[in-house]
Amino acid sequence: MSKKRLGNQTVRFVNPPSIISTGSIVGPKEGMGPLKDYFDLILDDDSFELDSWEKAESKMIKEAVKISLGKASLEASDISYMFGGDLLNQLISTTFAARDLNIPLFGLFGACSTMTEALSLGAMSIDGDFADYVIATTSSHFSTAERQFRFPLELGNQRKLTAQWTVTGAGAAILSSTGGGPYITHITTGKVVDFGISDVNNMGAAMAPAAVDTIKTHFLDTGLSPKDYDLIVTGDLGIIGSEIALEMLVKEGFNMHKNYTDCGVEIFDHKIQDTHAGGSGPGCSAVVFTGYLYKLLLEKKIKSLLLVSTGALLSTTSAQQGESIPAIAHAVSITSEYN
Amino acid sequence: MSKKRLGNQTVRFVNPPSIISTGSIVGPKEGMGPLKDYFDLILDDDSFELDSWEKAESKMIKEAVKISLGKASLEASDISYMFGGDLLNQLISTTFAARDLNIPLFGLFGACSTMTEALSLGAMSIDGDFADYVIATTSSHFSTAERQFRFPLELGNQRKLTAQWTVTGAGAAILSSTGGGPYITHITTGKVVDFGISDVNNMGAAMAPAAVDTIKTHFLDTGLSPKDYDLIVTGDLGIIGSEIALEMLVKEGFNMHKNYTDCGVEIFDHKIQDTHAGGSGPGCSAVVFTGYLYKLLLEKKIKSLLLVSTGALLSTTSAQQGESIPAIAHAVSITSEYN
Repeated sequence: MSKKRLGNQTVRFVNPPSIISTGSIVGPKEGMGPLKDYFDLILDDDSFELDSWEKAESKMIKEAVKISLGKASLEASDISYMFGGDLLNQLISTTFAARDLNIPLFGLFGACSTMTEALSLGAMSIDGDFADYVIATTSSHFSTAERQFRFPLELGNQRKLTAQWTVTGAGAAILSSTGGGPYITHITTGKVVDFGISDVNNMGAAMAPAAVDTIKTHFLDTGLSPKDYDLIVTGDLGIIGSEIALEMLVKEGFNMHKNYTDCGVEIFDHKIQDTHAGGSGPGCSAVVFTGYLYKLLLEKKIKSLLLVSTGALLSTTSAQQGESIPAIAHAVSITSEYN
Repeated sequence: MSKKRLGNQTVRFVNPPSIISTGSIVGPKEGMGPLKDYFDLILDDDSFELDSWEKAESKMIKEAVKISLGKASLEASDISYMFGGDLLNQLISTTFAARDLNIPLFGLFGACSTMTEALSLGAMSIDGDFADYVIATTSSHFSTAERQFRFPLELGNQRKLTAQWTVTGAGAAILSSTGGGPYITHITTGKVVDFGISDVNNMGAAMAPAAVDTIKTHFLDTGLSPKDYDLIVTGDLGIIGSEIALEMLVKEGFNMHKNYTDCGVEIFDHKIQDTHAGGSGPGCSAVVFTGYLYKLLLEKKIKSLLLVSTGALLSTTSAQQGESIPAIAHAVSITSEYN
């Protein structure tokens, strides 16, 4: 029997990987939000000097990886694997970036849960002694997501108040078998959860039950409770979804009112920036983690973090065929110190 | 330094995972091909009694997983992780199957390379002691792929002779920390390779350089040569791509003429079945491996296999924006006996 498993869905690492550096790039709107001082690069315009938004998104990944490599004084050739994915069909942002970076790629799709999926698999590859350095990365882009999933931006469609705003941004984190932390100590891998919600303009509500399922399972598997974390942060439930998740967890016996927030809530000033229910997209938890939360851990302003990126696993085809919205959430437990 | 690494891109497992069972389902056309006696289930019609091909594809994954569980006398709850993905946007075949199976999911996207991507990560999770049982799975469906990537089938467009035929099929393999083999002994993880080909009707040519890069790297990393394998099988280069790959490898000093084939060549009788350059799709190497090659290994008709699934990582958007076709290939080394 595996000695590293706790309960049904959790792994406790024996040699916890160290997150030795990160890189974060955001678009102009994110660069005017409350976390603006934490990002490595804020773009002046969201086309990143290229002729399509898709190419810009791919360049964001490539440059975020390069920033993280530079901070760690590593070359791309030092990295054994890139674990990454994005929201675009067939992961074109990630695959074109991996082509230029020349790093072996494990392509992932977890929609907006991709950052913690990548951190989970990356941490396994380090703890399992398959690699010395790996990179976890993901991205999203408001304009590429709008035209793939919704309407041409030129139409100027009105947005529902429950809708979220896809974050333009890319984050990369380098995991290492050596280093001084922060350390990934546990992962809890989510199941696909579907409460039957089919409103594609209310992703937060669709994803909240998946976040609740994974967080509850994490506490049951580990024997930990909300007070064991300085901060518990979901990926991109937004204002509506995070309120639902908080309430559902109270009913399950887990009160997180004091130390809980959501990346989609933190990244924008929703009153000023007109982002309705909050930020979303794989890039949301990617840049909030690699830009903001990672630095809180490094500076020991927080010592323990449970990061729970959340993904809505629908496609335009599944929605048109009347399917509800399945969702998934993966949790990663990170501490600034490890004994 | 990692003790399990060989060369630049290869891992040698210390406790090689055993593939204890497989399940394979194919459509009617594949069920009339030369490998028809090897599949567990051949569908009478490719809608699998559902009202959309997408739902049928998802059901194929679910049922292939159930067949593999049944053969191993396991329940879904015994499986720690499902590693899987498919060709459809946002992996709807896989995610809806995972919802119904209730197994924690790592969603993957490697296009037609997904089977060996899933086997690679699944093997890592077993060798790294993160799980006792995991499932690797993928699928494709001719009709869902045609309408997503090409034309409505109702148009009856003529197919180019270099075009391949997307396999309707799903395969699942259960990996275990115990068992009598066949064993996964090595993995070589591919980089994204792009030789600048942009003809979306000639995927084999686009993917051949990626297969060559990974196969060559595998031999250089391990010190093995083609004669060390009873069979070397690429994923779905088809007739054109596999000839290109063979020639390129000869130029690199690796002659595989005696023991090489391709899943896309094997699955159809191209003269009778009008499949032009051969089969393709993630389901192609999935069903040829789980249906046919796995049984050759079990019965020790072959004792060593290098399986190299190959993926073309384009999207309709990237093609429309004039991008060339990047490709990737992941190699998995499997032996029927292990000392």
